[in-house]
Amino acid sequence: AKKSLESRLLEANREPAITLDGEKVAIMANIEKVDEIRLVQDYSAEGVGLFRTEYLYLNSARMPSEGEQFVAYKTVAEALAPHPVVIRTLDLGGDKPMASNPALFPKESNPFMGFRAIRFCLENPGIFKDQLRAILLASAFGNVKLMYPMISGREELARANAVLAECKAELRAKGQAFDEHMAVGAMIEIPSAAVTADVLAQDCDFFSVGTNDLIQYLLAIDRVNDRIAHLYEPAHPAVIRTLKQIVDEARKQKISVSVCGEMAADPVFVPLLLGLGVDCLSMTPPQIPAVKYAIRSMAMGDARRLAAEALRMTSPKAILAMCEDFYRSRTNADPEAG
Amino acid sequence: AKKSLESRLLEANREPAITLDGEKVAIMANIEKVDEIRLVQDYSAEGVGLFRTEYLYLNSARMPSEGEQFVAYKTVAEALAPHPVVIRTLDLGGDKPMASNPALFPKESNPFMGFRAIRFCLENPGIFKDQLRAILLASAFGNVKLMYPMISGREELARANAVLAECKAELRAKGQAFDEHMAVGAMIEIPSAAVTADVLAQDCDFFSVGTNDLIQYLLAIDRVNDRIAHLYEPAHPAVIRTLKQIVDEARKQKISVSVCGEMAADPVFVPLLLGLGVDCLSMTPPQIPAVKYAIRSMAMGDARRLAAEALRMTSPKAILAMCEDFYRSRTNADPEAG
Ligand SMILES: [Mg+2]
Ligand SMILES: [Mg+2]
Repeated sequence: AKKSLESRLLEANREPAITLDGEKVAIMANIEKVDEIRLVQDYSAEGVGLFRTEYLYLNSARMPSEGEQFVAYKTVAEALAPHPVVIRTLDLGGDKPMASNPALFPKESNPFMGFRAIRFCLENPGIFKDQLRAILLASAFGNVKLMYPMISGREELARANAVLAECKAELRAKGQAFDEHMAVGAMIEIPSAAVTADVLAQDCDFFSVGTNDLIQYLLAIDRVNDRIAHLYEPAHPAVIRTLKQIVDEARKQKISVSVCGEMAADPVFVPLLLGLGVDCLSMTPPQIPAVKYAIRSMAMGDARRLAAEALRMTSPKAILAMCEDFYRSRTNADPEAG
Repeated sequence: AKKSLESRLLEANREPAITLDGEKVAIMANIEKVDEIRLVQDYSAEGVGLFRTEYLYLNSARMPSEGEQFVAYKTVAEALAPHPVVIRTLDLGGDKPMASNPALFPKESNPFMGFRAIRFCLENPGIFKDQLRAILLASAFGNVKLMYPMISGREELARANAVLAECKAELRAKGQAFDEHMAVGAMIEIPSAAVTADVLAQDCDFFSVGTNDLIQYLLAIDRVNDRIAHLYEPAHPAVIRTLKQIVDEARKQKISVSVCGEMAADPVFVPLLLGLGVDCLSMTPPQIPAVKYAIRSMAMGDARRLAAEALRMTSPKAILAMCEDFYRSRTNADPEAG
């Protein structure tokens, strides 16, 4: 008897994410709270590809201390070791101001292109350093990696890394343990970072592509504005070419590329991303089974041909239709239900 | 005796914009009102590279009629013929809502990435067609060109051109005269348009690069937000690489590229832009003398070497310093005064 899609998804979730031609794909989880550890385990994610740390700040009347943060990061790192946990430094500001601290986050006319994330951290080194030290201290208890959001170019990355080096020196001076080789990555979510990916790849250990923001800035489409939602097109050729460029430059420097935006969790786009050369996909745990099922239903060779064909095409709608056909033909599932 | 900078500027303004090695550069004017015709002539601009048409809408209690617009466009076209007048279709919305028509422009959380310009026009075909017909009718009286703002890709350009074709058919049916060969261009100011410049160049007659917006979206920096103004860097390698790509793709299709953003009016960046291969610079008339002086003080061969060197560099500050040195060494002028 034909199994239901649901039962096939559950089955796929117990198996590793391996394509029909035997290539293994890393599937990781996006989380925003410590108590999501259980979900990560239940859905057998191979670690956390994006640990959002904003909740520690947003739910608090004051800035969380180094110690409070350390406990949170250590708990996740320990529970999931030896799997990696990629902690993203503070991405506050923009649409996520800190309600208890309005003075730090003045109202802006275009918050998505405003004073936020790494821009905020570099101008508030006290807050930034508390977090960096907490992450470093947690790195002694598991496989912790760190990444900076909203990097626009090499000087910002260098400035952030200089602050990190200060924190390491402080911990060393106090004899506090941390992972001296903790990997440090850059989120690629601003077009200028993608355009200079060759330069950034020389100065970091991995890329994590934030497709939500990257698409938003590439197309100049506020992704939460309903009036223009139809213009927010992940299958736009500019997006696909940009992803290809990011992956190619990462390859040249032998660093890995993960995607942690919504595109990574959409089974219709999974073959395209993997075909382009993305190494790892990260998503909220409940999205994992459908993605694993898509991966287990396809051959990587076919996905590479799909990506090559997409790179030759110029119509977003035609590219999307091709990805939907690919998905449907492999899984017998309706893309809309994905 | 050494002449003052001011007298050198005035002298340069009477002469054509020719480099020391004999290359002629087209210098055009940005205007927003009909009564600026006189300024265009006084500063001997070779036509209008950007005729902003928003004032017709912003100062009015209602949408301007086709006839009212026709009179404005015809007046400018006739006065400046045979020089070209590039009319930009409505760029309302965003930071320029129409006060008298709030219903058409709902408040947005990120207006710079919102429902504006060509996005607005394509969803308000009545308003768009009134303007397109007015421009077409004016094209019978001078050298009129049309360009669309905020083009994000080929489908938007095709949709706009389909509306234009309708307008032409309507005029033909009524026996009204217009220039059947009126040039139609796309503003390149959204990163996705730059990334797909090869595709867009096949479907239009020229590119006009709006560097203000292009830089803003490439770097995800709201250009009017003081908090992050220091991060708005025209000399960012991502900007220079992107400009190079736009020019290269335009060359392949044998279409021209003008720059009408503030970068074109900054004498420090003029050699870089020309060295990259930009054909035409457009700016407000009072900015013309300093730009002409910079052009008349430099050799195009040197500018090309400057651009080639800039393309090899990765630090915005170093690129800016090199452009400042180039400018200072040619003009003996202080870049800050420019
Ligand atoms: Mg982001
Ligand atoms: Mg613009």
